[in-house]
Amino acid sequence: MIRQAQLQISHEEYLQRIEHLLAEAEQQKLSGVVIFTADYILYYTGFVFSVTERPVVLVINRRGERTLLVPRLEQEHASSHPLFDHVVAYDEYPHTTHPMEYLARLLKEQGISGRIGADAEGYAHVFGYRGPKLAAVAAAEVISLYEHIEDQMMIKSEAELGLIRESVRWANMAHALLQEYTQVGAVETEVSLRASTEANAAMLMAIGPIYKALRFDTRGVVAQYNGRVGRRSTMPHAMSATLLKRIRFQPGDILSTYAGAPVWGYDSELERNFFMGPPDDTQRRYFDHSINLQQTAVEALKPGIPCAEIDRVVRACYERNDLMPYWQHHVGHAIGLRGHEGPFLDIGDQTIIQPGMVFTIEPGIYVPGIGGFRQSDTVVITDDGIEILTYYPRDIDSLTIPV
Amino acid sequence: MIRQAQLQISHEEYLQRIEHLLAEAEQQKLSGVVIFTADYILYYTGFVFSVTERPVVLVINRRGERTLLVPRLEQEHASSHPLFDHVVAYDEYPHTTHPMEYLARLLKEQGISGRIGADAEGYAHVFGYRGPKLAAVAAAEVISLYEHIEDQMMIKSEAELGLIRESVRWANMAHALLQEYTQVGAVETEVSLRASTEANAAMLMAIGPIYKALRFDTRGVVAQYNGRVGRRSTMPHAMSATLLKRIRFQPGDILSTYAGAPVWGYDSELERNFFMGPPDDTQRRYFDHSINLQQTAVEALKPGIPCAEIDRVVRACYERNDLMPYWQHHVGHAIGLRGHEGPFLDIGDQTIIQPGMVFTIEPGIYVPGIGGFRQSDTVVITDDGIEILTYYPRDIDSLTIPV
Repeated sequence: MIRQAQLQISHEEYLQRIEHLLAEAEQQKLSGVVIFTADYILYYTGFVFSVTERPVVLVINRRGERTLLVPRLEQEHASSHPLFDHVVAYDEYPHTTHPMEYLARLLKEQGISGRIGADAEGYAHVFGYRGPKLAAVAAAEVISLYEHIEDQMMIKSEAELGLIRESVRWANMAHALLQEYTQVGAVETEVSLRASTEANAAMLMAIGPIYKALRFDTRGVVAQYNGRVGRRSTMPHAMSATLLKRIRFQPGDILSTYAGAPVWGYDSELERNFFMGPPDDTQRRYFDHSINLQQTAVEALKPGIPCAEIDRVVRACYERNDLMPYWQHHVGHAIGLRGHEGPFLDIGDQTIIQPGMVFTIEPGIYVPGIGGFRQSDTVVITDDGIEILTYYPRDIDSLTIPV
Repeated sequence: MIRQAQLQISHEEYLQRIEHLLAEAEQQKLSGVVIFTADYILYYTGFVFSVTERPVVLVINRRGERTLLVPRLEQEHASSHPLFDHVVAYDEYPHTTHPMEYLARLLKEQGISGRIGADAEGYAHVFGYRGPKLAAVAAAEVISLYEHIEDQMMIKSEAELGLIRESVRWANMAHALLQEYTQVGAVETEVSLRASTEANAAMLMAIGPIYKALRFDTRGVVAQYNGRVGRRSTMPHAMSATLLKRIRFQPGDILSTYAGAPVWGYDSELERNFFMGPPDDTQRRYFDHSINLQQTAVEALKPGIPCAEIDRVVRACYERNDLMPYWQHHVGHAIGLRGHEGPFLDIGDQTIIQPGMVFTIEPGIYVPGIGGFRQSDTVVITDDGIEILTYYPRDIDSLTIPV
């Protein structure tokens, strides 16, 4: 038997995903399913489009036939996609006939009425979109499939794991280049752009023309500090607004990185601290704690226990080491087609950890006036434990930049 | 009197925006206002944050006091922002106490109950977020202010127009560099990245450390083709998934550009066709039509008439010239804090055009097998007509790249 390695999700797998959704619809005695959310349309069909005020809606009838409702300007694009049995185009939004009226007509034609499953109550409020809810235009009872869909997306297939592994590869390269180009006096944003651009070019050359980002308006491979330089590294998400400032690296700075890469829609996450010159004792102590916290999570993670248990064990480690004043967030989150997704490694999440789930592990310590200490790795749950997919060095010497 | 030119929205202006919202709340006899959407929090307070599964919620009581509910990891960031009277932090999402329970408690403390105004029914389904609706946790009647907020954002102030003008400047530079580096044999994505990176560097150097993108995870100034090269230019939005392909420019290609730049959150839009070598008669004819359609819209635009009227006049121009087979979308959209926003220059939009509205004007012609022809300019409505803010050349000779 000859198999060709495939960096993609096969048509068969998309159809299996839809079958799984239809089984739920069957059980709930639904006459069909309506999907309004771009991420879910990507998940079930592999179709990517520009999300705007113009609704794009996937309709699946009880026989599993897939119809995509699109604005005129997506018609050719949707028609060239192999997963749709029918493409129905409306002229425009808002236009004299609202897209939701087209949807109502389409549902009628497909015999979808009475009880309808949907991921949302209507199209989201994107870019000022205004329109009625599905229940109103279809005069039907709408049953939410949102949680069912989110639950389904939690378990990754072999093909999905293959794409996440590929994402890890190119994020790792960008991250290595980020470290390579980070020098005293260099400008943060210039270093990030150079590392990201070179890693993108390498990825496109290596994977070649079969490569698909399957993400609209993506930046491609990214490795960056996002402003988390020196004492500013204590705000894990906060420096977004200064992304484009010209921060120059200085001796003694502690840096906090992020790297990811879109591969057929899938992402991974790699984060480290870098030190500009040998870390002092304080930096070293908190860094060691961050490794210890992460290792505690790594050793606790396994299938069959609730997500909450991991956060509980790691919080106990914060407490034993008097680190709770520096705690700001839970251990990690799932990752896949979205950069964050559920379940969460959080004391409030009772979801049972299962093989095929992919998580980031990233407990952090944020010490005012000193810096933020966090390493994030991406792991997959296996039948008897975990596999750590990211492999960037985690020892302090490897993360120290000579000054 | 000495005035200092300011590239920002003043605190006074944010407070005026809130007052305007509160006047509506007063009229509707609401006890307070709850805002769940990041774009609106930015509009009313200038605060930008990473949008994740962790809700960030702005609460405004009847006295105009502003409280921001944030996850622990945004606490320092929010507390350093001058527009909030109070910052309330919850530990995490999902955690053992759901963020919506904190919100319910906060509303009680602020005396907000009975009838509450809100932009949405609850926090949006971001990254798998799950939670109850506002009406359920507050045991109150929730009145939607969504359309009121969208209407308010339609009219731009002088300060907003100043930022959009600044956005135009740097988008224009990136677009000029895009043309400069586009040569036969060059790779589309490499040219886009080079032009965008250089324009970013120039903008940061020129505006200096006061610059704020006020956009999370932005790419900064961007000029790109987004895959709309040659015959692929007939799909206006569709080539997203191939953004990162290595398309090489060839003689005879028609290219379709996009340029924009985030400036204190505000954006503009500039789009042109480029021709790789002298356009043939067919290309020239359709290009001339695209200019003629755009000029028709430019000459029709003025305050006091419905948006629909502009689309009607331009559609008549398509029809007179037998171009309707190549029509794919309406004339344009408003633009500001979002790349698209309402109102829309569309036969279904009866909104009256008013001074201070900012629109793109971009009727397109998409001819199968030949190419997409579209120029987009950003204009502001004045008391007696319009001012065209973008100024990139629009004549075919200026848009022809020597081969």
